[in-house]
Amino acid sequence: MPHIDLPAGYPGIRSLFMYSPVTALPLNNLVQTLLHDKETSTLTPGERELIATYTSSLNNCKYCASTHGAIAKYQLDGNEELVRNVVADFEHSDLSPKMKALLKIAAKVQRDGKDVTAHDISFAKEQGATEKEIHDTVLITAAFCMFNRYVDGLATWAPNDEAVYDAIGKQRATEGYMTKPFVVSESK
Amino acid sequence: MPHIDLPAGYPGIRSLFMYSPVTALPLNNLVQTLLHDKETSTLTPGERELIATYTSSLNNCKYCASTHGAIAKYQLDGNEELVRNVVADFEHSDLSPKMKALLKIAAKVQRDGKDVTAHDISFAKEQGATEKEIHDTVLITAAFCMFNRYVDGLATWAPNDEAVYDAIGKQRATEGYMTKPFVVSESK
Repeated sequence: MPHIDLPAGYPGIRSLFMYSPVTALPLNNLVQTLLHDKETSTLTPGERELIATYTSSLNNCKYCASTHGAIAKYQLDGNEELVRNVVADFEHSDLSPKMKALLKIAAKVQRDGKDVTAHDISFAKEQGATEKEIHDTVLITAAFCMFNRYVDGLATWAPNDEAVYDAIGKQRATEGYMTKPFVVSESK
Repeated sequence: MPHIDLPAGYPGIRSLFMYSPVTALPLNNLVQTLLHDKETSTLTPGERELIATYTSSLNNCKYCASTHGAIAKYQLDGNEELVRNVVADFEHSDLSPKMKALLKIAAKVQRDGKDVTAHDISFAKEQGATEKEIHDTVLITAAFCMFNRYVDGLATWAPNDEAVYDAIGKQRATEGYMTKPFVVSESK
């Protein structure tokens, strides 16, 4: 049960967006720019959603990991196996060497930004990452350290039904983050 | 030295705002709403800045802890001693019982949102906190777990000169977060 009285029927951060529209707007503007807009990053939306999914998985945030895992799948032409393998053990997944180097940086930022070393940065560059891609990786990871804590710190509802996440994944991959949440169920 | 080539002369997150204006806008909208605007919270700007300062201190983020500590001081009519005592040991500071209960929640969110218990929430309510104030505390703490990682993950410049933070503190307490950063120094 959520720690505060949130609108019924909305899972995870959607209930918080309904509760606090004044903060929902900049938060959705941020993810729209960070994850969805094609012109703001040379990482693909699928790659950026994988960073969000991986971070949420490290933070053990069920709602965010499931939602962004589903969005990543739709952004990666249905490659659900890649999403699953990245979360389980990205080093042995089919990710590019560049993306593996960026996820190593993400894993450090998730713990503490100060853990990132000059060697991590030069290694990522050797694997083909640009400075802007390193910047985007750090900010996406940092942002999900916020979203995960917001969602879990107020004990929002994380549905068990995989179909809920799949529906959200398809919607967000298609429409982006600036359209309204929808009601999933009136019962929790 | 920063991990990526950031504009010279701008400290901390200011250099990142110059580097990436497209993400600077929603990030500044978020802190303006969360910390500065009077109509968005029944916590005072000074109380909200204390939560930001405390979280940044727990994350050991020198730039953010120093900056928001200085903003908090200006928002609290110059009460630098209170800011210092909150960071050092808030339980024995002159904070209200409500603010102490909210900072206990903040300390848990800083580690992991899932650490917050129903007892933490009921205790905060007994000390006079509203659900909206609990919401605001969780989101401010979560947001600074993002800002701290963004600033430290890219190894931005954190000046040693206290006068720099004092100038930023005075500016932000007066103008809010939607005005441009200024150049502090061309030399690092």
